[in-house]
Amino acid sequence: MTRNTPPALPTLLTDLYQLTMMQGYFFAGLHEQEATFDLYFRRLPYQGGYAVWAGLEPLLDWLAGVRFGEDELDYLASLGGFRPEFLAALRGWRFGCEVTAFPEGRVVFSNEPLLTVRGPLWEGQLVETALLNSLNFQTLVATKAARCVLAAQAGGATVLEFGARRAQGPDGAISAARAAFVGGATGTSNVEAGRRFGLPVSGTHAHAWVESFPDELSAFRAYADLYPDGTVLLLDTVDTLQSGLPNALTVAAELRARGHELRGVRLDSGDLAYLSRVIRAAFDEAGFPDVKIVASNDLSESVIAGVIAEGGRVDVYGVGTQLATAGGPGGGALGGVYKLAELAGQPRMKLTGDPGKASLPGRKAVWRAAEREGAEKGADPPYAWDVLTLGDAPRAGLLVSDPTNPLRAARLPGHLHWQPAREVVLRGGKRTRPAETLPEIQDRARQDLRRVPPETRRLLNPHVYRVSLAPEVAELRDRTAAELRSRLP
Amino acid sequence: MTRNTPPALPTLLTDLYQLTMMQGYFFAGLHEQEATFDLYFRRLPYQGGYAVWAGLEPLLDWLAGVRFGEDELDYLASLGGFRPEFLAALRGWRFGCEVTAFPEGRVVFSNEPLLTVRGPLWEGQLVETALLNSLNFQTLVATKAARCVLAAQAGGATVLEFGARRAQGPDGAISAARAAFVGGATGTSNVEAGRRFGLPVSGTHAHAWVESFPDELSAFRAYADLYPDGTVLLLDTVDTLQSGLPNALTVAAELRARGHELRGVRLDSGDLAYLSRVIRAAFDEAGFPDVKIVASNDLSESVIAGVIAEGGRVDVYGVGTQLATAGGPGGGALGGVYKLAELAGQPRMKLTGDPGKASLPGRKAVWRAAEREGAEKGADPPYAWDVLTLGDAPRAGLLVSDPTNPLRAARLPGHLHWQPAREVVLRGGKRTRPAETLPEIQDRARQDLRRVPPETRRLLNPHVYRVSLAPEVAELRDRTAAELRSRLP
Repeated sequence: MTRNTPPALPTLLTDLYQLTMMQGYFFAGLHEQEATFDLYFRRLPYQGGYAVWAGLEPLLDWLAGVRFGEDELDYLASLGGFRPEFLAALRGWRFGCEVTAFPEGRVVFSNEPLLTVRGPLWEGQLVETALLNSLNFQTLVATKAARCVLAAQAGGATVLEFGARRAQGPDGAISAARAAFVGGATGTSNVEAGRRFGLPVSGTHAHAWVESFPDELSAFRAYADLYPDGTVLLLDTVDTLQSGLPNALTVAAELRARGHELRGVRLDSGDLAYLSRVIRAAFDEAGFPDVKIVASNDLSESVIAGVIAEGGRVDVYGVGTQLATAGGPGGGALGGVYKLAELAGQPRMKLTGDPGKASLPGRKAVWRAAEREGAEKGADPPYAWDVLTLGDAPRAGLLVSDPTNPLRAARLPGHLHWQPAREVVLRGGKRTRPAETLPEIQDRARQDLRRVPPETRRLLNPHVYRVSLAPEVAELRDRTAAELRSRLP
Repeated sequence: MTRNTPPALPTLLTDLYQLTMMQGYFFAGLHEQEATFDLYFRRLPYQGGYAVWAGLEPLLDWLAGVRFGEDELDYLASLGGFRPEFLAALRGWRFGCEVTAFPEGRVVFSNEPLLTVRGPLWEGQLVETALLNSLNFQTLVATKAARCVLAAQAGGATVLEFGARRAQGPDGAISAARAAFVGGATGTSNVEAGRRFGLPVSGTHAHAWVESFPDELSAFRAYADLYPDGTVLLLDTVDTLQSGLPNALTVAAELRARGHELRGVRLDSGDLAYLSRVIRAAFDEAGFPDVKIVASNDLSESVIAGVIAEGGRVDVYGVGTQLATAGGPGGGALGGVYKLAELAGQPRMKLTGDPGKASLPGRKAVWRAAEREGAEKGADPPYAWDVLTLGDAPRAGLLVSDPTNPLRAARLPGHLHWQPAREVVLRGGKRTRPAETLPEIQDRARQDLRRVPPETRRLLNPHVYRVSLAPEVAELRDRTAAELRSRLP
């Protein structure tokens, strides 16, 4: 039974300036002004065409419960910059904002608000760091998992998460296992992640097991004796084809003679395409067509695609480092940001010296359109277009523009079916509906990935999915920017 | 006062196969056999010439205290593959091995055992995942920090860690702040890391602060009123040179009139070299030579080096994403491994299909030599050579070989001064000495980095520092490999 155990997010997992600003708002009397903050990212990870939104559900529990404890207040007092009246006010502080967001597991794109916090300025300000920390990382890993899973599916294979040893710290490993499951991994090797989230855990033996016996065959036999129905033998401690394979065939036959079946073998070095073909043929010929081939060794979506393109016969890809650390070009970190968009009813934006870093003012609604037809078998029709408005649904014929380049504009066609893409998930700091389970979230991601147009789902050089601004959003941005510039000294 | 608070490493932060193997050893009667495991990595991170070894001290406390709790045993029982006798044995399990390691903060290299665990096989096996998870990540971040700090030092500047929002999960942020401090960062923006480890925390305000006031000047004034001795003004919310700079000069003058000094300004977009020169000149000319310039915005060691090469006048570099996530070429993950080297007095190794992945059997000692002269001012003489032996110090004239290519061999010169590079840090699972403090560790790293030859310290294409095998180590490897091959079916 999977669980959405909340993350170990300390209240003080925040940047110091959030607290110095909170104190500033407090003494300036601004802290209760109604603010709107948008969380979004500017570039899709992995140079890809989509992202899988992950990390939301456990965060909602955290937001509903975050408080300043006495230890934390004592620590802040010890820093010297915080005044007693402010610290006293933090004692009763709670997060009571409204949060609107894409449901977890949804496919999302760049330059659209994924989550919006609306409520007292100082409440929205504190949670920036924790929101970004969790959502950036889990979205990054869920997206990587989806890329690996889609690559593996092309060869009828599945993906397991194996990355704990190289993950970025203990929680990097545990959160990564959860996010990988959201993105479609079938399980993890990480026992604590299994315990915490109820994820399926798997794994059999390492090289050290083989080396602990006088020879490989004795090691294989000892393992199969103890786990007659769950043995996956690692073949490459000595030599995959000359030693591992013949010994595994021997054990497979011995197990069958005792009424059991060898579950699988694992390859951890060498040419995985070649070795998996040879090994598949050997087991098939010996009458063991159900023995699974598991492959590991620095895998990624592109390595998986390469193994399949070369006729590899792998059944399960164990993806470690690259999945748990979101590696590869355009990976490592997701540059999500959290920007003030409105305060006390007035639009707010930053311009900065980099045009691409300007933020989008105003309270936006996100609408998503699907095509009316063209669905894959058993799936809903593909997504076609996301549009940001100031509230109303987009209308056919509306001239919409690209968020980063106003010169790219297009008219919305009439055949699209528009729906609000986000929902209110917290109101007054409380959940508006029960928590979703991990299988529900994984299922949403699986369905959604089938609705991403195939050319946008491509691993390399994907077609860019359209996210556009309705004219009133672009006008508000331009008007706000012009006002800011008009006040330059 | 800094602290080495132990990491939140759950006992079950391990790969499932560690536990299935432990049960296997237990029922095969092998679990108490004396095993030696070596932890090492094969490639230096960032295509660099060295690494800063980090994460050890808190792990020693964890190792000394790790136990299986009832919740964890119940979870394992629920998985179905573990038998009651084994689970009962885990109830009394503790880690009682001897651990030999480089002291934390030491500069280390690839293909040398950084940490060796010696003791009962099943004790050494369980801790593999947690050891690798912590040491890989902290070493990676400490090394990144050292690279950034050395780059910044060339311009007389310092480095702060700012990466919590893009770090890989909450602990990714907290551990990264600690490791960055080990590598030479002077502090962090992360309040929880400050609380947990006693690190200096810093930070002032973000764009949202400026946007919360009618105009930038009011925002700057409000901040300076509240923090008259600790104000660093962010200049780019509207326009760095046309708005931020003149407003900051106004506030600097107003603060001085009230007997205070503006502490600094921060640049977060645009050309940092150009802007910092213009801003330095403006503040100097206005009589504020002590106002510091802080720069942020996707910094890395190479961006820092570039800003300095172009005459930038930055005093403090706030490095975020790239530092906390160990980004950049050759970053993201450190491929540390943990391999069985000896069991019950017999050498053990794996061959595998990739020659570079073969492990080194036997109980090795690591010796490090310094030159007799050539020290930088105030520093000890530079490191010259690391040699692995089976115990004794290397002798002059010994023909030593490269660990990955036996064809590369050289004779040890006579003028080197050899010392054991590692020490026993746990014996019978207990510390052999009191825990080291973070400033002690940071200081060791700082001293050690000065002993790395300048050509090895270089950011790009560094000279490869020599790590070699004494003849008896190479012979043991070759003999063990030959024995393994002679037993191929």
